[in-house]
Amino acid sequence: MQIAMIQDKIVPISELERVYLDRGMFFGDGVYEVVRSYDGRIFALEEHMQRFDNSLTAIGIAGVDLDRIRRRVLKAFDAAGISNARIYFHITRGSAPRSHACDANLKPNFFLTVTESEDDSEAKTKGIAVSTHPDWRWKRCDIKSLNLLANVLARQEAANKGCNEAILVDEKGFITEGAASAFFAIFGRTLQTTALTVNILPSITRKFVIRASKNIGLKTMEKSLTPQQASGADELFIASTTNDIIPVVEFDGRLIGDGKPGKYTKLLTQEFLSFTV
Amino acid sequence: MQIAMIQDKIVPISELERVYLDRGMFFGDGVYEVVRSYDGRIFALEEHMQRFDNSLTAIGIAGVDLDRIRRRVLKAFDAAGISNARIYFHITRGSAPRSHACDANLKPNFFLTVTESEDDSEAKTKGIAVSTHPDWRWKRCDIKSLNLLANVLARQEAANKGCNEAILVDEKGFITEGAASAFFAIFGRTLQTTALTVNILPSITRKFVIRASKNIGLKTMEKSLTPQQASGADELFIASTTNDIIPVVEFDGRLIGDGKPGKYTKLLTQEFLSFTV
Repeated sequence: MQIAMIQDKIVPISELERVYLDRGMFFGDGVYEVVRSYDGRIFALEEHMQRFDNSLTAIGIAGVDLDRIRRRVLKAFDAAGISNARIYFHITRGSAPRSHACDANLKPNFFLTVTESEDDSEAKTKGIAVSTHPDWRWKRCDIKSLNLLANVLARQEAANKGCNEAILVDEKGFITEGAASAFFAIFGRTLQTTALTVNILPSITRKFVIRASKNIGLKTMEKSLTPQQASGADELFIASTTNDIIPVVEFDGRLIGDGKPGKYTKLLTQEFLSFTV
Repeated sequence: MQIAMIQDKIVPISELERVYLDRGMFFGDGVYEVVRSYDGRIFALEEHMQRFDNSLTAIGIAGVDLDRIRRRVLKAFDAAGISNARIYFHITRGSAPRSHACDANLKPNFFLTVTESEDDSEAKTKGIAVSTHPDWRWKRCDIKSLNLLANVLARQEAANKGCNEAILVDEKGFITEGAASAFFAIFGRTLQTTALTVNILPSITRKFVIRASKNIGLKTMEKSLTPQQASGADELFIASTTNDIIPVVEFDGRLIGDGKPGKYTKLLTQEFLSFTV
């Protein structure tokens, strides 16, 4: 008889709940999004839905009704009643006995959580330390997939060094992005960040940061940095959906500026938050 | 209230089964093995347990009692009563609300299946077609992790071309390995396969193939091949735990030899199977 075992418990495979045979677990064969709300309003939902659609298409998960997913997100947000919420959702290709190639008729699985958004106010007011780590991720980081072990390992190593984020460095010695954030440097009145390629997630927060930067009169340069260049910047910060902008005051053990969040970083944060109202 | 949604159904997060918050699903934060039995005997279990231990160590999952895992594998194999069985098992870092960094005290999750081993006798007697695909995998393919989306996409594209396996080619133009197999070429009386590096899974079947090759008097060369070199080989084959040796008779649309499984491939298969008795 074909069986499964969960910890010590033996179960006939035919009696398993479908989550146990989810291709998301076997292969990371799925894509996800995270959106957040500010004071009861979800920020940039359409941009996230568009990127989610792009990710689904890129890995060939077909037949997902995006309008239905949007309605689920809104329904769940409403049901949770959390005004500053973090909404995570993923779709996987479906459930089936483990095999790399798959039946085109699999029914995708949807999963979502709504939790309190935990704004780290100490990180925002004092800034954080970051450390570099080799970018071990796969070559299609433009797809927001469930294959995130490289990100986890980098973040874990950063945490072991007392840092809040790992800044990933590719084989040519250039910074790509943070393990779970976009990465920015300010030199004089110029904001610099890596250009979007197949090795970079098209961060939605990045897009709004660049808009904010134009609004406050900074020039924008989309060009990769080396760690050495980054550690000589006037200001550094990371940006992500869950935490918008967080100043970086220490880079691989070296203080940035006077070791306090920079003035343009603060102005950018104010400008960014004005978009969320 | 913090909630989850499974398809259309809303559930309080506190009532979710732990499998729904498995880091294996959120990040592919786990490692796995596949072993098989021939006529009631599991082949090379100790080698697989050793590699599993290496994978757990590499991603920093601590505190797993390998003897206990071995006992579970044997107990499940016994309970299933399948003489030619395929046994898949994984351990993930544990279950927790989604966050890249993790609590060191998480309790790992274990999951296993025992299914019938489906030897594809047509593939073995007639040989298969393979096609090349860029190697998009992450940079630590020596770790047998649950991050397998690149493998799935490559295998899927091969299937779309009527091929049974994708042969992965790195950025420098060299073959690394198959999406779910090791890859071998025979030129004259020399067996050639990629050397083991951090970009290659230390395949256990590969080790036994190399032993078989010595036993039948072939020389072994561990050196990467280009697709062009491979398509000019006298014989090609892939090897994996689940299917041991499968001859490759077509490579990117080009026939290998006379388009039939080669003589050394057949001899190697016989020799390999003698190890499993």
